Amino acid sequence: MALVAGVEQQQAAPPRSGLGGLADLAGKDLEAVNAIILEHMQSEVDLIPQLAGHIIAAGGKRLRPMLTLASARLCNYRGRRHLPLAACVEFIHTATLLHDDVVDESDLRRGLATANALWGNKSSVLVGDFLFSRAFQLMVSDGSLEVLRILSDASAVIAEGEVLQLMTSNDTETTEDSYLRVISAKTAALFAAACRIGAVVAERPDAEELALDRYGRCFGIAFQLVDDVLDYSARQAELGKAIGDDFREGKITLPVVLAFARGNEAERRFWRRCLEDLEQEAPDLDRALDLMARHKALEDAMARAKLYGAQARTALHAFADSPARRALTEVVDFCVDRAY
Amino acid sequence: MALVAGVEQQQAAPPRSGLGGLADLAGKDLEAVNAIILEHMQSEVDLIPQLAGHIIAAGGKRLRPMLTLASARLCNYRGRRHLPLAACVEFIHTATLLHDDVVDESDLRRGLATANALWGNKSSVLVGDFLFSRAFQLMVSDGSLEVLRILSDASAVIAEGEVLQLMTSNDTETTEDSYLRVISAKTAALFAAACRIGAVVAERPDAEELALDRYGRCFGIAFQLVDDVLDYSARQAELGKAIGDDFREGKITLPVVLAFARGNEAERRFWRRCLEDLEQEAPDLDRALDLMARHKALEDAMARAKLYGAQARTALHAFADSPARRALTEVVDFCVDRAY
Repeated sequence: MALVAGVEQQQAAPPRSGLGGLADLAGKDLEAVNAIILEHMQSEVDLIPQLAGHIIAAGGKRLRPMLTLASARLCNYRGRRHLPLAACVEFIHTATLLHDDVVDESDLRRGLATANALWGNKSSVLVGDFLFSRAFQLMVSDGSLEVLRILSDASAVIAEGEVLQLMTSNDTETTEDSYLRVISAKTAALFAAACRIGAVVAERPDAEELALDRYGRCFGIAFQLVDDVLDYSARQAELGKAIGDDFREGKITLPVVLAFARGNEAERRFWRRCLEDLEQEAPDLDRALDLMARHKALEDAMARAKLYGAQARTALHAFADSPARRALTEVVDFCVDRAY
Repeated sequence: MALVAGVEQQQAAPPRSGLGGLADLAGKDLEAVNAIILEHMQSEVDLIPQLAGHIIAAGGKRLRPMLTLASARLCNYRGRRHLPLAACVEFIHTATLLHDDVVDESDLRRGLATANALWGNKSSVLVGDFLFSRAFQLMVSDGSLEVLRILSDASAVIAEGEVLQLMTSNDTETTEDSYLRVISAKTAALFAAACRIGAVVAERPDAEELALDRYGRCFGIAFQLVDDVLDYSARQAELGKAIGDDFREGKITLPVVLAFARGNEAERRFWRRCLEDLEQEAPDLDRALDLMARHKALEDAMARAKLYGAQARTALHAFADSPARRALTEVVDFCVDRAY
């Protein structure tokens, strides 16, 4: 039961992980959400709470459920419905992560062994399905068809985005548009839904629902852009995290798209060999970093991230100033700034 | 687009596959269901309709959606809601099959290459997720929280059953109770839900909902028992279908559970070598068949199937005689009789 204890520990001391005001704002609610998560990942089939506990306790920032909590607060919501719905958002996210790690054949996530590395791909696929079903059971208990529509639409879009990513994986001809389409679907759709349901439970007008949707969508795109930049960033290396994971897997992220598009024929041959043929040698990552620096690929990808971050902040102008609005603004800044 | 054409072909001539009265009863409705399936498996991401079309068109009997259609008819339902809900049941079933084939590492399903064999495990996992999401989108469009509750509960139970099966796979000490628990969850839960929602759309009293739930559950158990017997049956061999697939995969089904429990120590060593260690030689399947014959394992497993079949038929006594009741009765008989 060490894994479950891991969740309880988190309940006692909600992770701060630099999310600043957002963690302060959501702190108390997040304890309740963690308790709901713990309760609903139980099953008589032992492997389910073991595996689910591993990934759920494995140090996730709980960013997405915190967005639901803060959005509900932003809308002056006074009830309790946002708590199980935030748990539901985390279950959908976790189910996606479990299937992602199977698809990416990943052994590590946030420095810990992945569930598929520990229990095998089969368990990860099936426990992912279980958590996804649990998410829908939680929504049904809430009883709002509007919430069910928002989250089932987001789930379909996420799955479409994952398939699209698989189809463009290792394809150096991927365009910036195609990359944006993938991250809008696989990452930003859940950010948007997580925020939007905060307005739905508070029964706010459509304009506020849509403003929160837009905030979440732009923030999600910025978040994924920064994540993809960090994989090649000296800043990440300074923090003691490995860089080059995406490179080794041949993932085509915006830094690669830009460096490839701006490179000469010899450089393109290099990218094709490393990322399409996955024939890599020790000095290749350094060469990739050099090419990205020469073509300002990381700089320009970060500029895109800042642009989306600014759009996210602007969307919040639909709301009056409040601690919740400040927290939601700050978390965008934090996310974009973590790359420096 | 050949795959999509496959579905259209089926629309023109709905599969009979010996389901007799049920196929006649559901025929016209099933064309409408097939059209809904075709419409809702579309996506701008080409791989999704290709892969989904392959498995959906690959000769499934559409038994589960036909149960929804016939149950609605049994309840004198006159509307159209049963059509998208039947499609939704088929989507859940298909998503499960896609993930099942990944978990079982199957290359063939009904004599055709599996989706994972053709497109890889990754695509099967992700397209399964997509179809599962589509199922929930269809339910949300229907708008009944009761239907959503029934099918999200069933989905969670199915996933639990699949995990339990994985945990007991290759374990010759599996008990009959444990086997029944697995098939009740992984197979019978969806049969029960498929039937029950027929009563829900017709707004019938709880007693009728529960009678249809019971019918579906007992029929589902009988269906799976027969399926597991057929894998060792001369009848299946006569029909030109391969036997011994479960044996080669080390699946612990009731025929094995009974033969193992009734065997002596030497026989149990044989079962352990073949099914736990998966060390099999050419004559082993014949020896397995001999041991099953000696211990009346297939006979007794079929007796259990008949018992559940009879319980399914009895559950229908909650309804007056009608063509729908006769069709639902006959399909149980057909299913149990196909083993002879």
